[in-house]
Amino acid sequence: MSSGHVLALSGGVGGAKLAAGLAAVLPPERLTVVVNTGDDFEHLGLTICPDIDSVTYTMAGLNDRQRGWGVAGETWQAMAALKALGEADWFNLGDRDLGMHVARSWRLRAGESLSDVTVRLTQSLGIAHKVAPMSDDPVRTQVQTAKGWQDFQQWFVGEQCAPSVSAIRFAGTPGARPSTAFAEALARPDLSAVVFCPSNPFLSVDPILAVDGVRGALAGLTVPRIAISPLIGGKALKGPLSKLLAELGQEGSNHAIAAHYGTLLDTLVIDRSDGDDAMHLQAGGLAVTLANTLMRGPDDQSRLAREVLAAVGVEY
Amino acid sequence: MSSGHVLALSGGVGGAKLAAGLAAVLPPERLTVVVNTGDDFEHLGLTICPDIDSVTYTMAGLNDRQRGWGVAGETWQAMAALKALGEADWFNLGDRDLGMHVARSWRLRAGESLSDVTVRLTQSLGIAHKVAPMSDDPVRTQVQTAKGWQDFQQWFVGEQCAPSVSAIRFAGTPGARPSTAFAEALARPDLSAVVFCPSNPFLSVDPILAVDGVRGALAGLTVPRIAISPLIGGKALKGPLSKLLAELGQEGSNHAIAAHYGTLLDTLVIDRSDGDDAMHLQAGGLAVTLANTLMRGPDDQSRLAREVLAAVGVEY
Repeated sequence: MSSGHVLALSGGVGGAKLAAGLAAVLPPERLTVVVNTGDDFEHLGLTICPDIDSVTYTMAGLNDRQRGWGVAGETWQAMAALKALGEADWFNLGDRDLGMHVARSWRLRAGESLSDVTVRLTQSLGIAHKVAPMSDDPVRTQVQTAKGWQDFQQWFVGEQCAPSVSAIRFAGTPGARPSTAFAEALARPDLSAVVFCPSNPFLSVDPILAVDGVRGALAGLTVPRIAISPLIGGKALKGPLSKLLAELGQEGSNHAIAAHYGTLLDTLVIDRSDGDDAMHLQAGGLAVTLANTLMRGPDDQSRLAREVLAAVGVEY
Repeated sequence: MSSGHVLALSGGVGGAKLAAGLAAVLPPERLTVVVNTGDDFEHLGLTICPDIDSVTYTMAGLNDRQRGWGVAGETWQAMAALKALGEADWFNLGDRDLGMHVARSWRLRAGESLSDVTVRLTQSLGIAHKVAPMSDDPVRTQVQTAKGWQDFQQWFVGEQCAPSVSAIRFAGTPGARPSTAFAEALARPDLSAVVFCPSNPFLSVDPILAVDGVRGALAGLTVPRIAISPLIGGKALKGPLSKLLAELGQEGSNHAIAAHYGTLLDTLVIDRSDGDDAMHLQAGGLAVTLANTLMRGPDDQSRLAREVLAAVGVEY
C-alpha cells in the first residue's frame, strides 16, 4: 500500500462528489484537487467558475443535493432584480452563489490569481484540502454547432445543450500553463495515484489535459492512473455526455470512455451494473474495478473514494 | 402660473420622497431629478450609488417604507455568503439591491456613462421622468474626523456616523462637470423652478453645488429656487444632520438651513410645527411656506410636491 499524495482531476457535479469523498477519507496534506476552468466565463462583469464552485460547495457540504447543483437554501432575488432591470437572465444566478461570484471577481480584479482566490475562498468555507484551478491562464471551452463556434455556457445553459455538437476546442490552449499547485502535484516524488473523477471526458477532463505539458506529464507517470466512468448503463447521470457521444459518432458506453483516455489510464472503475463490459475492457489492457458509482450523498462519496483508492493500492 | 420645467436636486431618502412626489404630479417632460453622487463608492468591485438607488427605488415605488431605505422585500443571502467567504460585511448588501449594483457596475465597466446607465436602469423600472447623476465625473464626499479624512461611507455606515466631524470636502471638485442632463436643465429657457429636496444640505446638496459652474448657474437664475427644510422641530427625521449641525458649530434649526443656502434660495418650506421660525426667516429676506413636511408615503409625497409647486407658482 502506498501512502503518498493523490491528485484528483475534476469537472463539476459528478467529479465534485468524488473529490468530496476523497477529501473525507484522506488527510489534507495527501490530496490535491485540480479543477477544470474551461467552463469559466465572464457574465455581467463577474468571473464565474462553475466547476470550481461545484467542487467548493460539495467539499464544504453546502451543495444542493436535491437540485443537483449550486448551494443549498438558494434564493433568486438578485436574479429577479437583474431581470427587472433588463439584464440577461439566461444564466441563473442564485443569491448565495452571487456572493461567491462577487468575492472571486473583485479579488481577481484586485490582482490575485485564480489559484490564490480559490485557496482563500475554499479555506474560508472550512475546506482544508488543496483545491486548485487547472491553470491561472484563461481557457475557454467552445463547441462547434450549426451556428459555428459557441462559448460553452451559451450552449450549455443558454441553449440547454440543444444544438448538435460537431467539435470541441479549448481557446487559450496551447499556451495555458498548469497552475503552480497542479504542476507541483504532478512532480511530487510521493505521488501515489492520479484519479480522473467521474466527469465528462470531453467537456470537463479534456480541458485539463489540454493545459501545456499535462498530457505528457500524465503519460510519463509510473503511478496508477484511475478513472471513474461517468456512465451507468451507457447513460450519464447528468449533463450532455450521452448526447455528445452520439453526436461525436461514438458508442455510448464505457468502451468510449476507455478509448478516449487511451494510454493515459491504467484502471477504469465502472458501475457494477455494467459488469458485462469488464472482460472486453480488460482485453484492451485496462484493469477494471466494479463499484457502485452512483453517489447519492456523503456516505456514497466516501465509500466510492475508498473503493477507488483500494483499487490502486493507496492507503486511506 | 408657470408651466415650464422643474429641476429637483436630491440626496437620498428624504429627497427621494419629494422627487417621487414631484414625478407623481408632473408629466415626464416637465421634471429633471438631479441626484447627489458624492456618497458613491466602490465596494467589493461594485460601484454603489446610494442616493441614485434611493431615488430610483422610491420613484419606482419599490422602496422599503418600514425600514426607511433600500428595496421592499429585501433578503440578505448574498451578504451571508460574502461574510462566510471572509469578505467585508460592514456595508449591508441586500440581494435585490445587489442586482442593481451588478447591473450598474458591469454597464459602467463596459464603457457606459453613469448618466446613460441611470437612464437605462430607471426606465427599466418604469420611471418615465428623467433621473440624472449630478456629474459623470467621480465626486467623493469625505469627512474630517479625529482620525483624519475618511471616505463618507466608511464614516456613515462603517462607523455609524459616530466620529465627530470637523470638516467636509468633495474629492473630485473642482473639476467635476455637470452631467449633460443637469447642464441642460439649468440652461432651459422654460425652466420654472429649482427645488432643493429635503436632503442634508451639507452631505447631500453641497456636493451638487460643488460641481463646476453649478453654484454660479443657480445664483444667476431668475426663476424661483425653493428648498424644503429637512428639519422638523430642529431635528432631522433620519440621518446625521442634527449631529453634524452641532459639530460644525451651527444652530439646529431652520435658520441654519437658510443661512447655509444663503442667496441661492428664494423660498424655504418649513414644517407647520415650526411656524414660529417664519417671521425671523422672512426678516432675513426669504419667503417662507408652511407645510406638513413629513412624508409617510406616496400620498404625502404628492401632497407636499403640490404645495411646493404652488408656493412658487408652478402648475401641476
